[in-house]
Order: sequence, then C-alpha cells, then structure tokens
Amino acid sequence: MCRAWIAEGRAGDPLVNSCLPLVSKAYAYSQPQSPRSLRKRRQRRVGTGGLFVDVPSIASSPGERSAYVSNPYLSTMKEDILYHFDLGTRTHDLPAMFGDVKHGIGIPSILIMLHELIKLLSHAKCSDVVAFRMGTSGGIGVQPGTVVVTKESVNPSFNPVFELVVLGVTKSYPTALNERLAQEMLNCSKELGKFDTVFGNTLCTSDFYEGQARLDGAFCHYTAEEKMNYLNAACKAGVRNIEMESTAFAAICARSGIPGAVVCVTLLDRLQGDQISSSHEVLSEYQKRPQMLIAHYIKKNFKTK
Amino acid sequence: MCRAWIAEGRAGDPLVNSCLPLVSKAYAYSQPQSPRSLRKRRQRRVGTGGLFVDVPSIASSPGERSAYVSNPYLSTMKEDILYHFDLGTRTHDLPAMFGDVKHGIGIPSILIMLHELIKLLSHAKCSDVVAFRMGTSGGIGVQPGTVVVTKESVNPSFNPVFELVVLGVTKSYPTALNERLAQEMLNCSKELGKFDTVFGNTLCTSDFYEGQARLDGAFCHYTAEEKMNYLNAACKAGVRNIEMESTAFAAICARSGIPGAVVCVTLLDRLQGDQISSSHEVLSEYQKRPQMLIAHYIKKNFKTK
Repeated sequence: MCRAWIAEGRAGDPLVNSCLPLVSKAYAYSQPQSPRSLRKRRQRRVGTGGLFVDVPSIASSPGERSAYVSNPYLSTMKEDILYHFDLGTRTHDLPAMFGDVKHGIGIPSILIMLHELIKLLSHAKCSDVVAFRMGTSGGIGVQPGTVVVTKESVNPSFNPVFELVVLGVTKSYPTALNERLAQEMLNCSKELGKFDTVFGNTLCTSDFYEGQARLDGAFCHYTAEEKMNYLNAACKAGVRNIEMESTAFAAICARSGIPGAVVCVTLLDRLQGDQISSSHEVLSEYQKRPQMLIAHYIKKNFKTK
Repeated sequence: MCRAWIAEGRAGDPLVNSCLPLVSKAYAYSQPQSPRSLRKRRQRRVGTGGLFVDVPSIASSPGERSAYVSNPYLSTMKEDILYHFDLGTRTHDLPAMFGDVKHGIGIPSILIMLHELIKLLSHAKCSDVVAFRMGTSGGIGVQPGTVVVTKESVNPSFNPVFELVVLGVTKSYPTALNERLAQEMLNCSKELGKFDTVFGNTLCTSDFYEGQARLDGAFCHYTAEEKMNYLNAACKAGVRNIEMESTAFAAICARSGIPGAVVCVTLLDRLQGDQISSSHEVLSEYQKRPQMLIAHYIKKNFKTK
C-alpha cells in the first residue's frame, strides 16, 4: 500500500511544519532516510504555489505501473524526462523519490504540474493517492476568511466542464469532485471549530482581472453595474468563490481516478469590492486555514490506518 | 522621455549582466542611485521566468498618467494595490520605482503580470515603452537552437486571435505584433552572426502535453499519426515554434499600444520527437540566445539615442 497526499498552496506552508514530522516518521518506517535528506526536502518546500507530495510507503511489486496514467506510448519510451520537474526515469530512482515544485498561477501551470506529477506517481508505483488543491480565492457573498470546499468547479459560463483544445478540436471534460472527500473536509472543519467552512461551487477563470469582472485591471470595458450583474448571477448559480485552477484540477482528478478536493480560503468578498483590504497579518492567518484543514485530515487518516 | 524594456525569460539571465552596467549608467544619468540600490535590484532579478524592466529616465510632468491603461475606474481609486506585485500606490512611490516579478507558465500568469505591469508603468508615468516576451519553445521544422522572431502568434486552430471570456461572453482580440520591431530583431541577429534566427508564426497553447500534441503526457488519446498530421498542419500554416504565452502577450501589447516582440529559442524540433535530448550545457547556451538578441537591441538603442 502506498499513499500520497498532494497539496498545492502558497509560501511558508504551516502544513509542512505540522505534518512533516508525522509523515517523516511514516516515511522512515518504510524507507530509512538521513535527517539531512529530510532537512533538504523541507528546505525545498518554499516559494509561492509550492507542491507538497508525500509517499510514506511503497509496497507495490517492481515493474508494476500505477493506474493513474492513461497513455499507451509511455511504456514504449526508453527514458521519460519530466522536463519541468528536472527528473528522468533513467537519471533518477523515482520509486525511491518524491518531488516538489514551484509553479505559477492558472490552468496551464497546474496542467503541467499534474501531468508530470501523475507520471511521477506512476513511475513511483504509488496507489491510494488523494489530491488537494488548496489556496486563496475571492469570495462571493461570504465573509473574508471563510474556507470554501468545492462542490462543483464551474467555468466562466457557470458550467461544470473543463475545455481543452487538443489537435485543434475542443475537448470537454467533467469537473466532478469526490463527494466523500469533500464531506470529510467539512467534518474536519467542524472538529477543528476554528473558522467557517462552506460547501459551494467554485468559479475558475483564465484571468484575474477582466476574467473575474474586476474594475481594477489595466483594461476595463464594462460598467460597475454589468460587473455586479455577473457576480450576482454567479452567486445565484451557487458560486461561493473564484480562483484560477480548479476546473483543470478536477478534470484531471476525474480522468486519472484520483479522489480530489478543492479547499480555498476567501481573502475578500467580491460583492463588496475588488481590492484586498485586510492586513498582511490577517491574510497570513487566512492562508493557513486550508492548510490546517488538510493537515487535520492527514493526521486523522494516519491515526486510523 | 522615458523608456522601459520588458523582457521575461528564465533564470540567471545574462541579459541582466550584459545590460545592467549600461542601463545603470543611463538610469544614473537621470536619477542618481546608490550602488547599494543597484546591487539590490540585481539581486532581485533571479528565478525562473523573471521579468526585466528598466525605466532609465522619467521626465513626464507630475499628475500625468501614461496612455497604456484603458480603465476609467482607476482614476477614481484612492489606492491601487497591485496585489501580485505586492505594491500599492499609497505605500510605494511608484514613479521612482520599477519592479520585477517571478511568475509561472501560461496565459493566466502572463495576463496577471501584464495587467499589473501596465498599471505600474502608468502609475510611474512611463512612455516610449518597448516590450519583449522571450523564452524557450518547441520548434517546428527548424534545427534546435534556432531563434524564432514571431510574425503572428496563433491559437491552436492557427488563427491570429486571443480569446478571453469576460462576464460570460467570449471576447476575441487580434494578436498582431510590431513589424518594425520584429525586423529590428532580425537585423540584430544578422549583426551578431552567432546563431540562426527565423521569422515565423508562433503557436500558443494552454497545455504543454495534449495541447501541444505530445505523446509523453499522463494522458494521450490520439495516435502518433494524428499527432504528426496536426504538427504538419501547423508547419503548413507557417508555425515555426510552440509556446504558451504569446497570444496573450501580443493581444495585450496591441490593446495597450506598446510595441512588442516575441523572441523564443527552440529547444527541440517537434517534428522529430517530444522529449528534449540536448545536454544541460547545450540547453543553457540556447536559452541565452534570445537574451543576447535583446541585449544587442538595447545596447544599439542606447547608443543612438
């Protein structure tokens, strides 16, 4: 049995601090590690949009490939280079490794990361993987600081699909997320009892300014009233927050068969404005909330398994 | 007169090393700077996908706003916070500053960067700005290491448009680039005489794997023959390289009136394969080529003005 948690979020993750000793212990249990290599791993987990992957035990038989990938060409390749991770199947002993990356904002960045991560999980023969997209977002009709666990991730037309042009043809993928995992996240929030967590739809856009109906971009050719009409329509469609990765994340989770959850904190209520007015300290505390939820989930699952 | 160059590329930019003394001199000419602040600037210019902006002289009259932005709401705001740059019009003296950022891969990342950069140029009252998108790409029918100066940036259907969903409606923007600037880049390459530079179309995608017809992603549901048909069709449409930012960059340049050029080196020929096989040393040398071209352009223009 092998289990990996993936969480992508922002800099200085307390999740790492909170879970690393626990995870390290489990990791060490199956594979002895020098404290130096653990320290090195910890040091590498910095920067905006870090990725957190832990594979505490690996017990699949050699030669076996995990079921997450779906590409017949992979097995014909002598070497597979995960270019953006700077890893290769010949140069690195992937079953004995796990990686973390820095990445950017938006669907293209998360797609690259997920393609290479899923291949990495496959090369490393992982199973029973659970994936989290965690981060920050703009709220819709909720108090700043509220955590939103995503029910459906929707595109800018409020449909639960992710579209990608492949060989010149637009492909449409459903963005259904794992209901049981979402429910577990809501239970975790109740158990913690430290902040509000709601279950709602998440709007995913390809642009932070015009794409999210902001009035504070370099370009704006709609009125404040048209903006509010759009945000109110989103609210009516069950949208509780807006971010820029969730449809691609949900679609890839569905395609790979990895249960996934999207857990984002809201930094402002977009029905009240466009700019974030909370202090740096308050925002820092908000950003820890999804990480606290996920850390709680990981701790619970380590204890019960 | 105020001039700013923007170049976004990869880590360890030799452009910085090559141009900083020159730019610093010009900068010092209009605004005395301590060596410490210059050193600090140089230190901040690191990391993958760095942005390089220089505003060597600022001579517009106070209160004047540059013409690049097109948003009537900006002037009504007491404070404008450029969230992703961590800058504000009240907390920072923007006319006396310039910024640089790290960002990710793809259209959403570059859109955020450009919105905030263009607002920054406006707040800083810059004029006569020239913008470069520089970086790496996959080639189509050209030798690895060839630099492509973009004629037209095209979407995955090979049309020179950038589409963005705004308030639920798909907006289409032309991706015309500045012809004179492109020609100047080609002249620079001739003058340098160090590597091949071609003038061709650039295909811009939202995904590195399926979106670029690769066979080495986590998912692949087309045949090797279908892949080649698509890449050959791209070649027939004048495409010489593939990357992930140029349509958005070109559209924003056109909308803001900033002359822009896209200058990317090819790391492989996609008609020959999907994985990059050149050594790290060779790739490092390739990555310097767009930077050398742009540095040459900057040096030439400093000398003649």
